[in-house]
Amino acid sequence: MEKFPTDETVWHGFVNWEKYPDRKEEAEKVLKQHTFTPIPEFQLIPLPSTNPILLGHRWKEYHLALGPNLNKIHEESWKIFKEEKRENMLVVLDFPMNCEPKRSDLLKSHITPNDIHFVRNHGGVPTVSDVNKYSIAIGGLVKNPGELLFNDLKDPAKFEQVEMTITLQCSGTRRIEQINLYPGEGDAHIHFIRPWAEGAISTARYKGVQVKDVIAYFGGVLPEGLHIEAIGADTYFKKNKVFNYTVSVPYRKAKYDEALLAYEMNGEPLPKIHGGPLRLVVPGVIGARSTKWVTNINILPEPSMGPVQRQEYLYYTQQVGKHNATFARGFSIQDMPVSSAILTPGDKEAIVHDGFIHCEGWAYSGGGSWVERVEISIDGGFIWNEVPEENLSPKHYYAMRLWKMDVPVPVEGWIELVVRCWDSHINTQPTYVRTAWNWTLHVTSSAHRVPVYSINRSIPATAQRLKLLEEHGEPIVPITHPVEFAVEGEDEYLDAMRLKGSREPVE
Amino acid sequence: MEKFPTDETVWHGFVNWEKYPDRKEEAEKVLKQHTFTPIPEFQLIPLPSTNPILLGHRWKEYHLALGPNLNKIHEESWKIFKEEKRENMLVVLDFPMNCEPKRSDLLKSHITPNDIHFVRNHGGVPTVSDVNKYSIAIGGLVKNPGELLFNDLKDPAKFEQVEMTITLQCSGTRRIEQINLYPGEGDAHIHFIRPWAEGAISTARYKGVQVKDVIAYFGGVLPEGLHIEAIGADTYFKKNKVFNYTVSVPYRKAKYDEALLAYEMNGEPLPKIHGGPLRLVVPGVIGARSTKWVTNINILPEPSMGPVQRQEYLYYTQQVGKHNATFARGFSIQDMPVSSAILTPGDKEAIVHDGFIHCEGWAYSGGGSWVERVEISIDGGFIWNEVPEENLSPKHYYAMRLWKMDVPVPVEGWIELVVRCWDSHINTQPTYVRTAWNWTLHVTSSAHRVPVYSINRSIPATAQRLKLLEEHGEPIVPITHPVEFAVEGEDEYLDAMRLKGSREPVE
Repeated sequence: MEKFPTDETVWHGFVNWEKYPDRKEEAEKVLKQHTFTPIPEFQLIPLPSTNPILLGHRWKEYHLALGPNLNKIHEESWKIFKEEKRENMLVVLDFPMNCEPKRSDLLKSHITPNDIHFVRNHGGVPTVSDVNKYSIAIGGLVKNPGELLFNDLKDPAKFEQVEMTITLQCSGTRRIEQINLYPGEGDAHIHFIRPWAEGAISTARYKGVQVKDVIAYFGGVLPEGLHIEAIGADTYFKKNKVFNYTVSVPYRKAKYDEALLAYEMNGEPLPKIHGGPLRLVVPGVIGARSTKWVTNINILPEPSMGPVQRQEYLYYTQQVGKHNATFARGFSIQDMPVSSAILTPGDKEAIVHDGFIHCEGWAYSGGGSWVERVEISIDGGFIWNEVPEENLSPKHYYAMRLWKMDVPVPVEGWIELVVRCWDSHINTQPTYVRTAWNWTLHVTSSAHRVPVYSINRSIPATAQRLKLLEEHGEPIVPITHPVEFAVEGEDEYLDAMRLKGSREPVE
Repeated sequence: MEKFPTDETVWHGFVNWEKYPDRKEEAEKVLKQHTFTPIPEFQLIPLPSTNPILLGHRWKEYHLALGPNLNKIHEESWKIFKEEKRENMLVVLDFPMNCEPKRSDLLKSHITPNDIHFVRNHGGVPTVSDVNKYSIAIGGLVKNPGELLFNDLKDPAKFEQVEMTITLQCSGTRRIEQINLYPGEGDAHIHFIRPWAEGAISTARYKGVQVKDVIAYFGGVLPEGLHIEAIGADTYFKKNKVFNYTVSVPYRKAKYDEALLAYEMNGEPLPKIHGGPLRLVVPGVIGARSTKWVTNINILPEPSMGPVQRQEYLYYTQQVGKHNATFARGFSIQDMPVSSAILTPGDKEAIVHDGFIHCEGWAYSGGGSWVERVEISIDGGFIWNEVPEENLSPKHYYAMRLWKMDVPVPVEGWIELVVRCWDSHINTQPTYVRTAWNWTLHVTSSAHRVPVYSINRSIPATAQRLKLLEEHGEPIVPITHPVEFAVEGEDEYLDAMRLKGSREPVE
């Protein structure tokens, strides 16, 4: 028998830590004997603008330390990633897997194909060896706790099978904007360098069973039952302690059909990397609550004490930080706020246009609110252009909308494109990053700003300059490249200057 | 028989216009023969800072024109107001009744007593003559349309009786801030002069029956039924046409227990002025959807075409106005956004303090979101002080929270107190009024700003000055009153100036 046993007849790569506290104690002893690669500090040095594949040294080392049943899971997880995801995915961290779709891929359809849906895993990918033996345990404050076979869950005679269109969003989305302003908590941010920024959001159509129906099958919730805890088969590490990934959401979510045990994603069996065969999918809230590889559903009187629930994904005020932060001072991030992003044009692009710049992106609001309106400003947020309704993808209660617009840009030079969204509650985004800055760098909900360089061909002087550049075989872009020839003759210069008159006063 | 008949054995002051289209036609003819007092224009002239009782000339004249069954309703409504509301209510318009509580009254308890709950009526107050004969009609897309006696609705054997704590908010709340910035649509704003500003919000505990239960009693909703229309007995006027007050909310609200037919308010029978004996109360949305004096509930495939639903309470972008506004360009205001207000100190108060200014107010978010956090800034919204949790009144899904805080104010002179609220979706308020300006002047959701003059006694020089003023028997407030004596002697002045050195450079 292995030191940390797994039941390979049902699962591969799943050590049940939560059921066996002695294993947790033993693992802590083992981990304490090791020295691991330290956490990199990126926040006070310039961030890379390219997309390096960050290596998940520490988490590999943690798993290696725990011996034979977990020490290959990083290789196995990488293999699954290669099988299930498109080759052009932007890999932000190789282990645990963090990757986002290319912006142009994300914009192609309002339902994101499975192979480009962003991934934010917190550990390795455990897999079910025998689906016929796979069951989940329903416990805590339910009338008749028990086990439910996966095959029974999928039986339409036992449970109503429902489909829902759901956007999942990582609360790290657009974190780069907060990092660029002020440094914050360093531990997690290394997963979210520039290319992660606007791509940690995707939409899929999930098929599954409402949690409330499963709970009803086990006799219903007891009166004190107010939270749904979900435990996953993946191993999570925190300060030399080990856990199975564990989080919770209020039971009210289930009551209002906002907690699904999903086994299909866009008409296919749930991919392994996304939690297959079974994932709790909670629409409207931070993606981290949608536990993958579900092993347990427990009904609790209070939120889960799992470290991810209690110590991660917290929202503080601007005045809370390293000097005074405690877990209790923040509140747990659940329903996601109204937000949006410009995916094209890109940051600091120089754009030659005829008075309109084509923009595309997404807009989203969590908690059952939907996107009512998207607006683009070219003047930093003073005047706003409304994206026409016909340029927005369909409305859903729980999904983002893609938008596009040819934005009127009569001016030239550096401008700042800004997008904001209004949701069905008439809530909108803060105008500036500082307005909603958070020490943990989670939830960047301010209006997204993209500086671009506007070159407006509909202005005669500019058209003339572009023609001149073309005649000399010199492109306008990159604008940082100096012009290699004289753009005006000496006579031309003197005529123009004399017309303007002397710069100094005459008397 | 009267020209516009009422069934006085059941109702007084209720002409059923919606059931009899010929009456509507006849009334339009009658109204067209009259000339009515024109709509006052206040927006480009200074607004009164006092609290005049505006006279509802036009609406009285409309009712007078319609003859004997409605021409006393303004007097009768005023009598009901006198009976049911506290004497110190700030009356903004006498007819239709618009009044708000005194700020200090509103702050006294997080459940607002009935006699100070704000009132925003859209017509006169009709009354039920015989409650045993009073019934409501359930129609439209329900399986078995029919009538429901009020006494049956209140029968616990027929319907589950529920209680809910609910804040109602008028979307005109704090409108004054938008008016002060730019003029907007004039028709409605006369109801909302300065004192209305922060008081059009109140909380009560309602008892009643869920609309979904009533609909189930009539066989349930048909698949195409997506909206709940409610018709009230009051008469509403729009461009020489008459209507019974009619609005709608999505049926989804009823499904999620967010539509109540209420007959009790804070343990008492629903006051007449608040819609007694029966009001539709829809928590989380604009108060205007909570139809008073209910006569009909209809299930519709689309929102109500009633003028209040279709033409009023719309939310536009900042670039929509008189030059381009159409009803279809706005969206209907339903769920209310996150908002807050400072009720004390008052606008431009001069405050002598010892380093802390005591502030109190309310914070609210609609649509089932609750207030998570309240913050006060003294620097225009750059640094924020969190109101401690223990200084917030209890949390409810559908109610505002009162807050109070001794805000640290180390500085002196004019400062601007700013409040903002964060709700359970991590949505917060726009920092500036312009950020959320709307042509109809509805929904002022930006951070509320109150300029006050800070006089900080904990600063020695200020303490000394206050002592000097006291010795001379001159108060510090009003600060606009010039000091009548010399605050420094000539020698004192010269010593201080010579210490500073010459203002001009020496060479």
